[in-house]
Amino acid sequence: MLDKKHIKYFETLVGEENVYSDKAHLIAYSYDATRTRYEPEAVIFPRDEADVSAILKYCNEHQIVITPRGAGSGFTGGALPSQGGITLGMEKHMNKILEIDMENMVAVVQPGVINMDLQKAVEEVGLFYPPDPASEQYSTLGGNVSENAGGMRAAKYGLTKDYVMALRAVRPNGDIIRAGKRTIKDVAGYNIAGILIASEGTLAVITEITLKLIPKPKFTKAYMGIFPSVDDAMNAVFKSLAAGANPVAMEFMDDLVVQALKEKLGINLPEDAGALLIGDVDGNVIEEVEFQLETLEKSFKENGAQEFIIAHDAQKRDELWYARRNASPSITIFGSKKLNEDISVPRSMLPEALERIYAVGNKYGFKVPCFGHAGDGNIHVNVMVDGSDEQQLHDGHKAIEEIFELVVEMGGTLSGEHGIGTSKAPFMNIAFNEVELDLFKSIKQAFDPNNILNPGKMGLPN
Amino acid sequence: MLDKKHIKYFETLVGEENVYSDKAHLIAYSYDATRTRYEPEAVIFPRDEADVSAILKYCNEHQIVITPRGAGSGFTGGALPSQGGITLGMEKHMNKILEIDMENMVAVVQPGVINMDLQKAVEEVGLFYPPDPASEQYSTLGGNVSENAGGMRAAKYGLTKDYVMALRAVRPNGDIIRAGKRTIKDVAGYNIAGILIASEGTLAVITEITLKLIPKPKFTKAYMGIFPSVDDAMNAVFKSLAAGANPVAMEFMDDLVVQALKEKLGINLPEDAGALLIGDVDGNVIEEVEFQLETLEKSFKENGAQEFIIAHDAQKRDELWYARRNASPSITIFGSKKLNEDISVPRSMLPEALERIYAVGNKYGFKVPCFGHAGDGNIHVNVMVDGSDEQQLHDGHKAIEEIFELVVEMGGTLSGEHGIGTSKAPFMNIAFNEVELDLFKSIKQAFDPNNILNPGKMGLPN
Repeated sequence: MLDKKHIKYFETLVGEENVYSDKAHLIAYSYDATRTRYEPEAVIFPRDEADVSAILKYCNEHQIVITPRGAGSGFTGGALPSQGGITLGMEKHMNKILEIDMENMVAVVQPGVINMDLQKAVEEVGLFYPPDPASEQYSTLGGNVSENAGGMRAAKYGLTKDYVMALRAVRPNGDIIRAGKRTIKDVAGYNIAGILIASEGTLAVITEITLKLIPKPKFTKAYMGIFPSVDDAMNAVFKSLAAGANPVAMEFMDDLVVQALKEKLGINLPEDAGALLIGDVDGNVIEEVEFQLETLEKSFKENGAQEFIIAHDAQKRDELWYARRNASPSITIFGSKKLNEDISVPRSMLPEALERIYAVGNKYGFKVPCFGHAGDGNIHVNVMVDGSDEQQLHDGHKAIEEIFELVVEMGGTLSGEHGIGTSKAPFMNIAFNEVELDLFKSIKQAFDPNNILNPGKMGLPN
Repeated sequence: MLDKKHIKYFETLVGEENVYSDKAHLIAYSYDATRTRYEPEAVIFPRDEADVSAILKYCNEHQIVITPRGAGSGFTGGALPSQGGITLGMEKHMNKILEIDMENMVAVVQPGVINMDLQKAVEEVGLFYPPDPASEQYSTLGGNVSENAGGMRAAKYGLTKDYVMALRAVRPNGDIIRAGKRTIKDVAGYNIAGILIASEGTLAVITEITLKLIPKPKFTKAYMGIFPSVDDAMNAVFKSLAAGANPVAMEFMDDLVVQALKEKLGINLPEDAGALLIGDVDGNVIEEVEFQLETLEKSFKENGAQEFIIAHDAQKRDELWYARRNASPSITIFGSKKLNEDISVPRSMLPEALERIYAVGNKYGFKVPCFGHAGDGNIHVNVMVDGSDEQQLHDGHKAIEEIFELVVEMGGTLSGEHGIGTSKAPFMNIAFNEVELDLFKSIKQAFDPNNILNPGKMGLPN
């Protein structure tokens, strides 16, 4: 598809040093966090928006498919060049924080900026950028916007979409569009920024992001609730929130995760803990922090909590969080390969959802340790299989499909924060009917009539 | 365009009592808050989503244009049948609160529910629906979603879009689509709900809305800052917010509004007040309320405030708010007709924006009293003219166009909350370039290829 003539054109356009077409580099850029591999035919690093526009225009005219890529840390293959063609690497040059506007509490960044770099830069001046996906140390803000990244703090502070005020982006034909403003309110024209968020790089290439910042809360404390069972903990989640608690985070770990943390890492956790809820609360005044802790403690205890622990200082807070941060690596004691999905249900459905998910695991004989962002109904479900056993892999995927079906039946979604990409594309027809899938295709067509931009993702045509 | 055969079809479909085609009713449904008149050829009241689907399908097949309408309280003509055809009245039957789900803090409503009816219903059970457009007593939630309504509380609590979790809607071809979930997080598929919000009824007819609710804050107090000049007040707006204040509302009134309130309503306001800032602060604990008041007072005084008044009880709070609530009716002392626009700029640009707006008024010899939601940069600009003087009307519209130009030049928007509709459609090319306007057309085409749904709005083709 991509011949020497095309490579030559791109080398002239952006400089030889910004075009990789040698085997070693193509292999290096062939995978993301899904571990699935698709080799691109070239990797190009645009230096600026004008480069992005020229590259896309050329690709559009020559029917060359092109996939934008940030850090490649996605869990569903959004940045994989599954149809070959060009990978557009945004992390090499387009990685600058352009402005931190303290007067309007706004940051303007290029898409290749790493999430944590922005967090640190704004905290230095007393401001706060809340979205904190687990990948915050390496994922890029362009990727965060394209997948609408969540994180631990979403329970109180919301998702990436809640902070995007404006975008600049390039359509597949090279047209540069501006969407949104550096204003809190803007109702002129269609909400183009709204549809670009979570569109997984299939509609346009984002070249600049204007993000809302908020004042950094002055006080933070951590808490942990210890429950006899998953069911008790899940009831405590929605009942404490309905009682008025508004924690920054409310993270969940089930009994299997607790067991794994003890066995693999020797973490000291209560003998009889059937489930844990852990999180932070914050406020501008210490009384607000205390109000939150009191509300949580009361509600947790009414729902069977054996113990409610408060971390009053940073060291104790780190100790409480250590367990949660190690949940994911610890559970490999239950199987060499985890098939992990990030389903989300209405919070009141969490008790039933977990019960039914475990039942699916039992049916196939798999352990299914679960943890995640219970405060917003988003659970990371891990079906643990022996990765060298074909039958187990096959059954594991069947189990995942059954889990998706029960989640959708309960009013939930295939993905709370990881997106669809290639991994979940086969399940789109569980969540959407023909009419809805057709509408997605019409929207894709409106932005990208030649279907050159990240084709084949999200259940859209190759 | 609409003949007896069509009317007959609709009467059979929804019942004769739900189809108006007599002159008196057509006149009654010919205007909205813009006072511009366009007569529909029939008004139809669907009883449910199935009716909406059948009506749209028929209109699509017969190329009949159709305009959805809530309370007709919009300020830019979004609900006006500017191309004739059918007005689809959502307020008669589809006006039920279907569910208040306290466990998930979610309300499910039909589009014809009046904003205040929902506010009251949820407050009765300790919950809170923040968006409070000035039309809250009569505007419908379907209209609020279609225009992305804001309000006084947007400074802290955001806009309608921040509360929409899911929508059901009917496409012009009759297809019923579901967009979003009763989950906090959902990144499966394109953000269809996101593009329907603020689309002014041009893409689909909304038939059901799932809204996020939050716990009702326990404490509220009001404040008023009195400033010698508009410039001082406008500086205090962004500086107090950047200093960490997070008031529920921060409303602005300029010296002309203060003068009008005194002269027309005899309201007792300080003799030398050049501008006022008024608002509420709230919190779960009284210390948070006090923190907010202290932050505001300090910052206001650093920016020239002569006085900072706190309303500790409900009666005093009503007194402070009485001025703001009467701002709009009082300013008619400056001209029989107001040409009012709701521009929005980045908050730090407010001082310069106001200065330049007054200069435009001076150039033409018009008073331009301004008030509005300064906390989110959204100002209601009123060019006051003699409505019986053609030259003044002509010059007034020229002044408005100049104001739009300077606002866009300063990074602002044509509309913070009123939308574009018919009124601001002529100005869309000030805010958007050809490429962006073409993209809007492509999106409209994707949803509504026959262009039957509310055509001619937002600068889109008739």
